[in-house]
Amino acid sequence: MRITLIGSGNLATNLGHALRKADHEIVQIYSRTMESAQTLAHALDVSDFTNSIDQIHSDAELYIVSIKDAALSGIATELTKGKEDRLFVHTAGSMPMDTFTCPRRGVFYPMQTFSKQRIVDFSHIPLFIEASQEEDLQLLHSLADTITNSVYEMSSEDRKYLHVAAVFCCNFANHCSALSAKILEKHNIPFSVMLPLIDETTRKIHTIPPKDAQTGPAVRYDENVMNRHIAILQEEGEERMADIYKMLSESIHQLSINSQNEFFGAPSQKS
Amino acid sequence: MRITLIGSGNLATNLGHALRKADHEIVQIYSRTMESAQTLAHALDVSDFTNSIDQIHSDAELYIVSIKDAALSGIATELTKGKEDRLFVHTAGSMPMDTFTCPRRGVFYPMQTFSKQRIVDFSHIPLFIEASQEEDLQLLHSLADTITNSVYEMSSEDRKYLHVAAVFCCNFANHCSALSAKILEKHNIPFSVMLPLIDETTRKIHTIPPKDAQTGPAVRYDENVMNRHIAILQEEGEERMADIYKMLSESIHQLSINSQNEFFGAPSQKS
Repeated sequence: MRITLIGSGNLATNLGHALRKADHEIVQIYSRTMESAQTLAHALDVSDFTNSIDQIHSDAELYIVSIKDAALSGIATELTKGKEDRLFVHTAGSMPMDTFTCPRRGVFYPMQTFSKQRIVDFSHIPLFIEASQEEDLQLLHSLADTITNSVYEMSSEDRKYLHVAAVFCCNFANHCSALSAKILEKHNIPFSVMLPLIDETTRKIHTIPPKDAQTGPAVRYDENVMNRHIAILQEEGEERMADIYKMLSESIHQLSINSQNEFFGAPSQKS
Repeated sequence: MRITLIGSGNLATNLGHALRKADHEIVQIYSRTMESAQTLAHALDVSDFTNSIDQIHSDAELYIVSIKDAALSGIATELTKGKEDRLFVHTAGSMPMDTFTCPRRGVFYPMQTFSKQRIVDFSHIPLFIEASQEEDLQLLHSLADTITNSVYEMSSEDRKYLHVAAVFCCNFANHCSALSAKILEKHNIPFSVMLPLIDETTRKIHTIPPKDAQTGPAVRYDENVMNRHIAILQEEGEERMADIYKMLSESIHQLSINSQNEFFGAPSQKS
């Protein structure tokens, strides 16, 4: 398939590599800056690149738009102008399909955490697709099948819940590790000692639902430990971390009480 | 080594299996309830078990105390009475060594998330040890070496930072997945679609520091997406999740600004 990539960020870079590996023809790359357009074009062996929307050719079969969500709605109409018979898809989990107003529009959302410095294997990445027209949905399905084994059709409505859920289990979980690393760094303890614990936390939820896999002072409601931890964070001058500690501990406790309720059918009395 | 296990919870169960695998002799098991003492004793093929502190024999070389942190300080003195020449260690990351007052005391803390229904491979679990007497430290080191390749000597002072850091990158990260699962469940999306994303989030921080591995709307400071997510959570009646979303997003943003400061040596102006 002849594809034009609009964007050159973390996602566009990783998706570009996956499309190329599957022998699709990337005919042109657009980016806001010439430098990043060129960098990605070179990496993907594409000779035609531009930083001008006017210079985007109209002869591609598919335009994949991977730009910052905030910028997307601003330039969606400009991008599709003069290409009204072409298929435009964006890759933003959080944006509805109708961000585009052209007749042939869709979504091609690979749900993963992408960084330019790390080109990931696409073959097991879940890819969520949607299209305004049935034949375009089939076209996207065929394309998606060439780069991953996990293709799902999903509406914009469902995808918005999917996306906020992804923020929790990826972005927020990663930030918990970043805060952990911050404390360790202050006390000259290498973050690498945490990796076996983090690995097991992840392995566990492949077989046990995360609610049931929960361990630690909050789910035991061990107030002595929680209060000591909060005091340690405050002594370290980490007021925000202390607040995060309190809020997440309370949330763990509430979720565990609720699941006991579900199980026993009556309010639980914590002893 | 002849070892008595005090406790029969998640950690005691997993540690018991690891000690047995390394051919140590578990001579007796104590638990608060006869039922759980018996369950663990049967699993580890130990014939002597009790739920009475008075019935704990004094002929073991080592007493490993794995009970809820909140209960530990309450019964530490009672446990060691009449066994003043014996070595007592606890396995609580959050408790100082001096929770015991007997002359031969120590800590034997395997940093991992343990559940009874999942017996883990101990061989790569970091184990943090401490002892009041040099020869006991050597003894604990030898014992630890038989069950894992990662043994560290660490003071009670440093261990308290280690433990709070572990709560963030294990317990809190897991809770982020539990909240993610809660949203998905409401909309009949299987949690399993998240596993490739969670796996990659974990793999990434083996090579990239978590602060640098951060992706998502908060680190891009994409206010449109963040505001939409918060509105979705509020519409779902998940006020607490909306508050967690705000607090963690603000924390991600602050940490990214601070790291830019570290890098450029000047306050960053976010555009």
